[in-house]
Amino acid sequence: MSKCPTCFVMNFPLITKSLGIVSLLIGASMALCLPWALPVCSGTPTIEWNAIGALVASVAIAVLLGMGLLRLGRGADGRMFRKEALAVVGLSWCLASALGAAPFLLSGTRKGHSESPEATAGVRMSVVDSLFESVSGFSGTGATVITDLEDPQLVPRAILFWRSATHFLGGLGIMVLFVALLGQGSAGKAIFRAELPGPSKDVGHSRVQHAAWIFAGIYLGLNATVTILLLAQGVSLFDALCHAFGTIATGGFSTYNDSVAHFHSVSIEMTITLFMAVSCVNFALLYYVILLRPGRLFRDAEFWTYTGILAGATTLVVGFGLVHGDFANTTEAVRYSLFQVTSILTNTGFGTHDFDAWNEFGRGLLFFLMFVGGCAGSTSCSIKVIRYLILAKALSLQTEQVYRPSVIRPLRLNGEPVEPEVVRDVIVYFATFLAIAVGAWLLLLAFEPDATWSGIGGNPHEKLMDCASGVAATINGVGPGLGTIGATRNYAHFQPASRLLLSFLMLLGRLEIFPILVLFAPRFWGAKQ
Amino acid sequence: MSKCPTCFVMNFPLITKSLGIVSLLIGASMALCLPWALPVCSGTPTIEWNAIGALVASVAIAVLLGMGLLRLGRGADGRMFRKEALAVVGLSWCLASALGAAPFLLSGTRKGHSESPEATAGVRMSVVDSLFESVSGFSGTGATVITDLEDPQLVPRAILFWRSATHFLGGLGIMVLFVALLGQGSAGKAIFRAELPGPSKDVGHSRVQHAAWIFAGIYLGLNATVTILLLAQGVSLFDALCHAFGTIATGGFSTYNDSVAHFHSVSIEMTITLFMAVSCVNFALLYYVILLRPGRLFRDAEFWTYTGILAGATTLVVGFGLVHGDFANTTEAVRYSLFQVTSILTNTGFGTHDFDAWNEFGRGLLFFLMFVGGCAGSTSCSIKVIRYLILAKALSLQTEQVYRPSVIRPLRLNGEPVEPEVVRDVIVYFATFLAIAVGAWLLLLAFEPDATWSGIGGNPHEKLMDCASGVAATINGVGPGLGTIGATRNYAHFQPASRLLLSFLMLLGRLEIFPILVLFAPRFWGAKQ
Repeated sequence: MSKCPTCFVMNFPLITKSLGIVSLLIGASMALCLPWALPVCSGTPTIEWNAIGALVASVAIAVLLGMGLLRLGRGADGRMFRKEALAVVGLSWCLASALGAAPFLLSGTRKGHSESPEATAGVRMSVVDSLFESVSGFSGTGATVITDLEDPQLVPRAILFWRSATHFLGGLGIMVLFVALLGQGSAGKAIFRAELPGPSKDVGHSRVQHAAWIFAGIYLGLNATVTILLLAQGVSLFDALCHAFGTIATGGFSTYNDSVAHFHSVSIEMTITLFMAVSCVNFALLYYVILLRPGRLFRDAEFWTYTGILAGATTLVVGFGLVHGDFANTTEAVRYSLFQVTSILTNTGFGTHDFDAWNEFGRGLLFFLMFVGGCAGSTSCSIKVIRYLILAKALSLQTEQVYRPSVIRPLRLNGEPVEPEVVRDVIVYFATFLAIAVGAWLLLLAFEPDATWSGIGGNPHEKLMDCASGVAATINGVGPGLGTIGATRNYAHFQPASRLLLSFLMLLGRLEIFPILVLFAPRFWGAKQ
Repeated sequence: MSKCPTCFVMNFPLITKSLGIVSLLIGASMALCLPWALPVCSGTPTIEWNAIGALVASVAIAVLLGMGLLRLGRGADGRMFRKEALAVVGLSWCLASALGAAPFLLSGTRKGHSESPEATAGVRMSVVDSLFESVSGFSGTGATVITDLEDPQLVPRAILFWRSATHFLGGLGIMVLFVALLGQGSAGKAIFRAELPGPSKDVGHSRVQHAAWIFAGIYLGLNATVTILLLAQGVSLFDALCHAFGTIATGGFSTYNDSVAHFHSVSIEMTITLFMAVSCVNFALLYYVILLRPGRLFRDAEFWTYTGILAGATTLVVGFGLVHGDFANTTEAVRYSLFQVTSILTNTGFGTHDFDAWNEFGRGLLFFLMFVGGCAGSTSCSIKVIRYLILAKALSLQTEQVYRPSVIRPLRLNGEPVEPEVVRDVIVYFATFLAIAVGAWLLLLAFEPDATWSGIGGNPHEKLMDCASGVAATINGVGPGLGTIGATRNYAHFQPASRLLLSFLMLLGRLEIFPILVLFAPRFWGAKQ
């Protein structure tokens, strides 16, 4: 179709071709989960054979779809412009989520708890359940509907591995498809272009490709490091891989009901804490650290603000927790607070302590931290620290503007002036993000019956905050919320409509809103200007 | 001091002089409350004599302070520039609030309920209590710490009248000092300048003065109309005036514990509903309606959006309320919903029904409406509809910008393009407003002990939402919040630190943040550029 250089006509074959490749990659990844089903075949044959069947069928679907798409898009040419890139990113996540739901659905994985009235048989995951779990995985959220992960009669190990693998794929996709292709939305645009590692200083095609490879390399390296460190601490290969995926993608799916608390090991907790924190540093800056030039990292305002928030929030949680007797002693307080604050701030969602039982200030602070996140150019979700930095500076300048309208100062970050358009984009992003969150909150309040909260010993007045935390935990990619969807609970009892809404929020939040929003703009697809 | 025309040096004598005038006006207004103490002197001598003494002393303080300030500022000359105007507006509210607290404090007004353990004597209002009540009055919030308004042994009638009079003065101050002097902050700036009634089209000094007189006239006219309508429905002059003040200033102080529900009259409720709604329409547009040229009003996008929100929210509250059995029948549902939605949307805070007992969607919607408010150029507080309109349009343009960076469309409102600076200001205002609200929420969570919520049958998990509603109800000038500070409760049991924080929020919200924020900027007071 379009060969015009200033292409305003959507290059559909190119998009189709790209989606075909994504589909094939998903299929290949699913195939890699098959080995995990084999060793346990003798012990629990039925369910693992189901898993094998489901994975094979899913691979077949993905491969057939991929080949079909490639065929449709054959002969695609022309460069990929911003519009196509946006469409590919937005549609890739939708496609991956849909394909990724197939193994959950086809394998007959049970979401019900074995102690619940559904007893041994459990309740099969529905289409919505499977989609929720898949979106949650790819978006690095880690919100789940599966109540008992540890019963091999309910959840096949191969499916459990696929569940964690979606984190890995989603995180890789964010670094390559999103960060490299779109330059990290409006956030990092200011510093990102400047920091982008590459052979030359011009923001050319090859430089972006180069950056994508480097980012993918760092991402794989971090995953490998965590896996090895966990193996060295006696964790099985299966668990080590799954938890590495959950850590580096800042996802949060565990293979245990008690999440990371299951290991009862301070060193494992500290390993995961460290790497959750590292995954939320700008990968471009990590690259310079690997090149033994850490100066750039230590001169970066966002990095220091992020570290400051982490340290400050942990101190507050330790202090308030000790005053309210949430922890047995100071050592425990530091151990659990540091892990939990890091887990929430980085939007991972792993747990070692039931933070829902903390004092209300601690709960409130964690809720707020959900909206912060890590640095731009990382696997972190949420609003990200750089936007807060720019907002704070814009506010300070605005206050001066009020009484000195004639004085115009540029906003500076790391000593460099930030373009006014970037500042505007950041503030619009803030407002949009919060507007969507509020709208989703009202919808969730309407979808969920008050009865969910007025059950055994419940209090319907908790609904408002719990629903707010549900929105916060999904749009920010955290996973667990407060109250009825808190650290020790999950989303299984939410209405299907609510779970679809929350799935949508996970995608929106993960892709920084606009790549999903444009898909709904008729003008976006229009052939003419 | 400064006689330079492009004055960057602060003209302190001019500010001092202006504050002196404000002080004298407050004194004069207090003196007007004295007659209400006299008729009941024979019945309850002690407390009313206390009130008379307190008012006389307060008048003396205000007059002395005013004369002192006038003396200090004598010989002030030069025009008032934006900087001075900001300082006068910000400091006037602080001064008025401080002076306004004196009658509460000096009269020994009791905040305790006569049924409470403090029994007949009650608990005297402290300095913080008095300040809270005074700020709440001047800012048109209507949040109170007085538990029993109806016991003449606890609260003198003259003080009760002064309490409502602060609403009247605050509302008048907003229309004259704030709207006319500052052109309604960033909000209405776009449409306001265009709509400003005045003899000429140039935005000159005389035009602003003209507008101030017109606005004051409409404001007084609305107060008189409501007073007469209430008198005609059998309300006493005292109650009619107090409720008119509460309605038109969108304040919400009543003279009864049950607020407007006390009258048990549909017609009184409808009168107040109508005038709460009218007070939140842009006064510049009301002026054209009075001139029998309502065309401008009916062509105004903000007015229609405001009306739409009012109608839509009422419908939703009626619908969800009926489904959940919150109301006995449809008539009651419409009656109470319309009143309550109007009261909350307009940030008045009057009550006829305990909305805290409604279903959770209804509660959540009211919480959201607190952040909406009425139109710019009205007595409404909160963020205001026009900012939402501009935000929605900016978001829609931004979505297009994402895939079409080269196409720049101007944002249009009522067919006129809005300057990019105004759009930026509006979005910064949004972000600032929410950032301050979140910060205040975290502070409030830290100030208030969890024990407040874990008392008799309480649930500490309600704290997060109740505190959020406390912030929302004060920064938006509503008054009652949810839960422990809900429609049937008050702020008496909050910590003094919390009440000071909330008082500060009321002032911030009422003056659209920046006139208060600049007072804390050292550069603002600096003599040099």
